[in-house]
Amino acid sequence: MALNNDKKLENHARLLVKCPDKPGIVSVLSTFLYKHNANIIESSQYSSDPENGTFFIRIEYHCENLQSKISEMENEFAQIASDYEMDYSFYYLNKRQRSAIFCSKELHCLLELLWEWQNGDLETDIALVVSNHEAARQIVESYGIPFYYLPANKDIRKQVEAEQIKLMDEYNVDLLILARYMQILTPEFVDHFENRIINIHHSFLPAFIGANPYERAHKRGVKLIGATSHYVTNELDEGPIIEQDVERVDHRADVTTLRKIGSQIERRVLTKAVKWHLENRIIVEGNKTIVFH
Amino acid sequence: MALNNDKKLENHARLLVKCPDKPGIVSVLSTFLYKHNANIIESSQYSSDPENGTFFIRIEYHCENLQSKISEMENEFAQIASDYEMDYSFYYLNKRQRSAIFCSKELHCLLELLWEWQNGDLETDIALVVSNHEAARQIVESYGIPFYYLPANKDIRKQVEAEQIKLMDEYNVDLLILARYMQILTPEFVDHFENRIINIHHSFLPAFIGANPYERAHKRGVKLIGATSHYVTNELDEGPIIEQDVERVDHRADVTTLRKIGSQIERRVLTKAVKWHLENRIIVEGNKTIVFH
Amino acid sequence: MALNNDKKLENHARLLVKCPDKPGIVSVLSTFLYKHNANIIESSQYSSDPENGTFFIRIEYHCENLQSKISEMENEFAQIASDYEMDYSFYYLNKRQRSAIFCSKELHCLLELLWEWQNGDLETDIALVVSNHEAARQIVESYGIPFYYLPANKDIRKQVEAEQIKLMDEYNVDLLILARYMQILTPEFVDHFENRIINIHHSFLPAFIGANPYERAHKRGVKLIGATSHYVTNELDEGPIIEQDVERVDHRADVTTLRKIGSQIERRVLTKAVKWHLENRIIVEGNKTIVFH
Amino acid sequence: MALNNDKKLENHARLLVKCPDKPGIVSVLSTFLYKHNANIIESSQYSSDPENGTFFIRIEYHCENLQSKISEMENEFAQIASDYEMDYSFYYLNKRQRSAIFCSKELHCLLELLWEWQNGDLETDIALVVSNHEAARQIVESYGIPFYYLPANKDIRKQVEAEQIKLMDEYNVDLLILARYMQILTPEFVDHFENRIINIHHSFLPAFIGANPYERAHKRGVKLIGATSHYVTNELDEGPIIEQDVERVDHRADVTTLRKIGSQIERRVLTKAVKWHLENRIIVEGNKTIVFH
Repeated sequence: MALNNDKKLENHARLLVKCPDKPGIVSVLSTFLYKHNANIIESSQYSSDPENGTFFIRIEYHCENLQSKISEMENEFAQIASDYEMDYSFYYLNKRQRSAIFCSKELHCLLELLWEWQNGDLETDIALVVSNHEAARQIVESYGIPFYYLPANKDIRKQVEAEQIKLMDEYNVDLLILARYMQILTPEFVDHFENRIINIHHSFLPAFIGANPYERAHKRGVKLIGATSHYVTNELDEGPIIEQDVERVDHRADVTTLRKIGSQIERRVLTKAVKWHLENRIIVEGNKTIVFH
Repeated sequence: MALNNDKKLENHARLLVKCPDKPGIVSVLSTFLYKHNANIIESSQYSSDPENGTFFIRIEYHCENLQSKISEMENEFAQIASDYEMDYSFYYLNKRQRSAIFCSKELHCLLELLWEWQNGDLETDIALVVSNHEAARQIVESYGIPFYYLPANKDIRKQVEAEQIKLMDEYNVDLLILARYMQILTPEFVDHFENRIINIHHSFLPAFIGANPYERAHKRGVKLIGATSHYVTNELDEGPIIEQDVERVDHRADVTTLRKIGSQIERRVLTKAVKWHLENRIIVEGNKTIVFH
Repeated sequence: MALNNDKKLENHARLLVKCPDKPGIVSVLSTFLYKHNANIIESSQYSSDPENGTFFIRIEYHCENLQSKISEMENEFAQIASDYEMDYSFYYLNKRQRSAIFCSKELHCLLELLWEWQNGDLETDIALVVSNHEAARQIVESYGIPFYYLPANKDIRKQVEAEQIKLMDEYNVDLLILARYMQILTPEFVDHFENRIINIHHSFLPAFIGANPYERAHKRGVKLIGATSHYVTNELDEGPIIEQDVERVDHRADVTTLRKIGSQIERRVLTKAVKWHLENRIIVEGNKTIVFH
Repeated sequence: MALNNDKKLENHARLLVKCPDKPGIVSVLSTFLYKHNANIIESSQYSSDPENGTFFIRIEYHCENLQSKISEMENEFAQIASDYEMDYSFYYLNKRQRSAIFCSKELHCLLELLWEWQNGDLETDIALVVSNHEAARQIVESYGIPFYYLPANKDIRKQVEAEQIKLMDEYNVDLLILARYMQILTPEFVDHFENRIINIHHSFLPAFIGANPYERAHKRGVKLIGATSHYVTNELDEGPIIEQDVERVDHRADVTTLRKIGSQIERRVLTKAVKWHLENRIIVEGNKTIVFH
């Protein structure tokens, strides 16, 4: 990962924990942090069930001289984690995640992400953009971001994915964002990036899974259209939902109008999901997400 | 239908027309009304396609001494309708539609309808309430509305429906409102009341068609739950959608919470759909609705 | 306060704390609870500023045999509170708060509160309803709740308030809910119930402070109307805002229509605010609220 | 105005009429259009009051060989307009309106407008962009649009406005869009462009008129923030409102966060207002707007 020189981020970290619920977890976690002079800035927790449920917590903390304490803290924490059967991750804010954006011909989602990123509102380095069309090249390169044109279709899927994986490795990519990429990914590819591929689907899932959701929404005569951002799994449009939103439409809206209205929903829903992922606000549990806003 | 003595309504009517689109329709309709000294109060139109489409219009008008002119106007209009191949209906506001509400044990939708009706916000006489539980009797009778307890289940469906149809005939019912009635109706029953049965389904259709939508929404981990009001057809939850709405939920919401939040959506969505139907704002076209707000 | 016999609530409590922010607070609080075998069910916190800010936390916990431990726990906590300069309160769920609803002629807010209360969705005993009109008597008494008709106007304000305070004392009222009561309260009355009077104002404050907000919204030609629930202070409509919501309107809406649409907003906004107050989710800080949803 | 060569637009026009309400208006208008072989594509009307009110109508129509019929139709219409005391305008879609965008340092509204315009979703030619900062130059010029840097402040207002008016004349500008321009305009300037200057104010007016609305919203502790698009008049932020929208916020949002959330509202509210203006959907009546969606 690229180092970020921002001094303020050096002492800033997050701890995400998942474990069987039982009394004393918050006490042990907060006492651990206190002992190391870490100050909790934000803390959110959720218990799936007070009795025999699973406990989830996200703690954001600040700690003077954090960089020099990391290995000691992580070593000590390993024992706590073992005692409480914790799944856990530490995230350090000076190590920014690296993202790859995959897009096709429709660029509204890409442009929204670039805009938010340029404003400093996405905690990531956009390492590269990959597309099966040339449409985005000019705008992407104007931001100084490498652009790769990789034609893609059913027949050449495997070899294209091999190239894509090579690029992801080469650029040390942590997160893949499918900004209306419109290509099916193979199970091998998806497994390679488990819970690290975010897609935007242009319907309020589980309605209109699959192709042509606006056409089908029009045909069904719905009064609301929506978009859904979710992690990609090997079941089409069935992955854990991160965010959804809708807009009102009426009988006058033809498919073109639905698509225009929908594009506004898509870009804000995808951007929120990506932002929350990068801020480590999302825990995937089974086929659902816990999102600590 | 019951006569309403409100003087102001005697001179108040609506004309709904559907016909092949071509130039001159608005001219002929508005000239017809003007000749009879009718003043257009509200007019809304929609054309499915400027070329070879279908034209729809709803005109609300006021006309002094309307009652004495009705037969003459309707006779004269028959010729226009024939010339332009119009499907059409005149509605006179002093003839209020008569409604039957069908409910079960969950009463939030029934209560909302009664409350709006008591406030004078529903243009209908509520002729009777039918339920397969006794839960609503007390509140319904406190409004002076006849309540009929008719047990219903799969095994006795046919004979129960025969009784229900008898009641509908006896009470001259124009509109059936299924306020969380939760029973499947037979094709015979549905055909008997084509485009005159309004149901509320507790999901944003076409997601979660059928039973237990809140349980399934919870399982899928959606971030929005909804409700849909639609005309009942013989395809379960596939009838023309009149209105839909949603509310935001998160991972903390269990099924009970979804149900509570959902009940707020259901009651407002059903009430709007019923209100628009009674105000003759809805035209059913194929499996879709045109709603002139 | 009335005792509630619900066994499940006996072992259920909440702790709200406000204090100067510094490291270790969560540790000391969670360790205190853990020592007493209390299991944290829900915890939400907020820090106004990581440096020299104020820290707020709401912890909901469950503890076997809580009733027998209360005095010991509270005694021990007093020392912690002193060390950390904490303002704090313990709330025990078997002691339900007692509410008085004040209303006038428009009953939509009252009816919504009664309906939610009857469904078991408000953690309160509604001790009495006070009104300056008789309109609500029948419905209130049908719920078995005492109804007091106390005429009120500018000239007799002081003596009416004296009677009202007497009633509040007699019925041990904790919370006053102004459900469209429409009378100004004197500073003496307001001071007597600081942060315990919740009002619903029929505009999105700070727009349209004072009388006739719907008329003024109509005159201004706004495209959204709203309602605001807030704690009552001695500055008219300037108290801490708890909740607000809006609905879209257009040029066709006259004042009567605005009032109808608005009444739907009012009833849901007031009910949410009351619900959150009763669940101890609100901390008043200066002229603002922290609401832990 | 620039001619647009799009053949499809040559036969496409709109007629907006305002006149005292009386029977026969729709008849005379629709008969006039029918006689000239014009087909009504969309028609919306509103009457402020059925008795002695004002009638407003917007008709969009298609007419073969329209360009050759314009003078004849307009001449003939003058007589109808005189008979019915009509204010009216014909708009021909092949004559696109010309817009000037005024901006300052914050570019989100400008960028949204440019993006919608590039997508073909704004019926206008963007003639030039004027700013009191250089920040937008590069992006504006990359679209091939002239950019003018005119420093502006209180002391040099008169002479800057003289230059601006000269530019508006030189570029034949029909509409001025203040995309977060943040400068007060003099009455002389405003009068010169009556009902042709659209501003975006970053609050839900009439709350937080004037400077620093986000700071004041934060201080007041509102739970919704908004934005309002309106025509500029000589009363600050008091002009006819075209569109408003809001987003939910909570106690955690500091002023920076409010500003970020607000910028999303601003850009969509301004873009809608501009779009409706360009589609001749707005009639200003007193200090209010009628918007025919």
